[in-house]
Amino acid sequence: MVAPRVYQAMTQPLVGHLDPFFFQTAEEVRTLLGYVFSTANTFNMAVSGTGTSGMEAAIANFVEPGTKVALLTNGFFADRIGEMARRHGGTVVRLARDWGTPYDYDEVREFIRRERPQVVGFVQAETSTGMFNQAKPICDAAGEVDALVIADCVTSLGGMPVLVDENGIDIAYSCSQKGLGCPPGLAPITVGARALERRKQRKTPVDCFYVDLELLDAYYTGRKYHHTASATMLYALREGLAIVAEEGLEARWERHRKNHEAFVAGVEALGMKMLVPEGHRLWTLNTPCLPAGVDDARVRGYLLEKYSMETAGGFGPLAGKILRIGTMGYSSTAENVALILEALKDALAKAS
Amino acid sequence: MVAPRVYQAMTQPLVGHLDPFFFQTAEEVRTLLGYVFSTANTFNMAVSGTGTSGMEAAIANFVEPGTKVALLTNGFFADRIGEMARRHGGTVVRLARDWGTPYDYDEVREFIRRERPQVVGFVQAETSTGMFNQAKPICDAAGEVDALVIADCVTSLGGMPVLVDENGIDIAYSCSQKGLGCPPGLAPITVGARALERRKQRKTPVDCFYVDLELLDAYYTGRKYHHTASATMLYALREGLAIVAEEGLEARWERHRKNHEAFVAGVEALGMKMLVPEGHRLWTLNTPCLPAGVDDARVRGYLLEKYSMETAGGFGPLAGKILRIGTMGYSSTAENVALILEALKDALAKAS
Repeated sequence: MVAPRVYQAMTQPLVGHLDPFFFQTAEEVRTLLGYVFSTANTFNMAVSGTGTSGMEAAIANFVEPGTKVALLTNGFFADRIGEMARRHGGTVVRLARDWGTPYDYDEVREFIRRERPQVVGFVQAETSTGMFNQAKPICDAAGEVDALVIADCVTSLGGMPVLVDENGIDIAYSCSQKGLGCPPGLAPITVGARALERRKQRKTPVDCFYVDLELLDAYYTGRKYHHTASATMLYALREGLAIVAEEGLEARWERHRKNHEAFVAGVEALGMKMLVPEGHRLWTLNTPCLPAGVDDARVRGYLLEKYSMETAGGFGPLAGKILRIGTMGYSSTAENVALILEALKDALAKAS
Repeated sequence: MVAPRVYQAMTQPLVGHLDPFFFQTAEEVRTLLGYVFSTANTFNMAVSGTGTSGMEAAIANFVEPGTKVALLTNGFFADRIGEMARRHGGTVVRLARDWGTPYDYDEVREFIRRERPQVVGFVQAETSTGMFNQAKPICDAAGEVDALVIADCVTSLGGMPVLVDENGIDIAYSCSQKGLGCPPGLAPITVGARALERRKQRKTPVDCFYVDLELLDAYYTGRKYHHTASATMLYALREGLAIVAEEGLEARWERHRKNHEAFVAGVEALGMKMLVPEGHRLWTLNTPCLPAGVDDARVRGYLLEKYSMETAGGFGPLAGKILRIGTMGYSSTAENVALILEALKDALAKAS
């Protein structure tokens, strides 16, 4: 759900993409993004597209033909990083664990030492499995071989500690509609000094004009036209970020943690097991396993029809095995957890 | 300006990007886009980005390493098509006229016959100059050598006759914030059968995942996840398109034509000349030349500060020489024309 204040912000009169007020808004977004990413980086902006465009911006700008990318994968979105890296000409080597299985960080370090990539890609918050992967040991290992680290924070930003600087993440991107409680349509991204320096050494132009970060930076800081960014979406994002700042990041994380734990206690009481081991779970997206014999589509259809509750199913190797239930942003409340547990109890009874 | 009904539509509760109601909305958008593009094409969708992402989608999908692109250019945006085509590996040959000068269509035909490109790119409505370029003779010439035609309709769609089928345009893209009266953030695109057939013969994958039209089509028609499209923005676009349909395309074009002509009469009465020759002008964007000695930035600053009116200046070879004043979508009204003329009179008096 989107915070009512965010909807209200979107109805502010539209100004042009080169209007002084537009740039003032963009500057506020830059500062607030630094806060939610927990970084002193000044290269923070919202790419004018969804989270996937943020991923494309991260990959297209730091991968060119010949770049070696070491991919850590234990879910769908990590492999999408690999797919994009190949499209942009990179060579991809993978360290794969089963979907929803934590990495062995000694193995990660060995892998990175052995492969000596220029770029390491991983997903901090894996939306396909509900798993949180640790950034610090990955960044430390990448640092040993002077590789840049790209972290997908789509489902962590605004709901869990992303901690860009403390972890040593070089490039992090996210989306507007999850932990930040806005509609989809913008992709926050932050890029550190080391990555910006590395970007200057590219041998080829970025193949995708729309997400060329040098041009985007010239637009946002130099007011040099690149595209018509949406003031409306930026109003929404600024409001969403302001709400995060008012609540306070730590308090917000704590709210997400508590509501997630209440959800887990509740589904376990219903006899369901969580897919992801304790201590590795997202606080924003919960992935209980469906009891044997219970039909995924039927449960979700019932929840949508009777309760107007959208839930997602598993896919890939997890198809039909799990539910994916968000408790994030504006929707992460004790009331919503109680509601979904009640509804889930009803749905499971109907489906079995 | 955005139509109030569009703002209202955006505050409808957000649904997910795989919700049945989301796809129903997307289907309505598909049908309505067919209407505003004047095409029987069924491959109509909104790319989840601004008009520039629509341009990137058109280029990235139909240009690959080795593709020969014949570019017709008499303004800024045509050369941007060339810039993108080169980034995606294309070889670009240009037929250039001065900014704001009409093509000689015999010369265009000769050029295309001689170069025998696979793709021809041109801008129907050149936002940098206020010029309308004729699609028909370009498409006819391209047809002779079996080249696909990509047309930039960013500033024509919803305000002037784009006429995709009648002209024989293969790929046309636009934006949401001009003739359609929505906030920026989506890029309508339509692709004809011949282009879809040609796309299947690509030798390489599309380098930009985000705008890969095959994946986008699998998402919108096959409900196969690609990215989290913004229901909010789609509500806005559907409402904007519904308003076009209610008004009727022909009536809407006529409204734009009349208000444009009233504007022209008014600025000529103020002693200003139009940059573009009569019969080649956009009805959506007017480009009067500034009188000698009048400072562009001062006039525009005054209009913004005193009247809250956003106008654009010229750039490139037209820097300081013209104003670019929109009369498009919801803003194309007799009242607005009267207002801007009054304000312009005041501003010119102050600036000289």
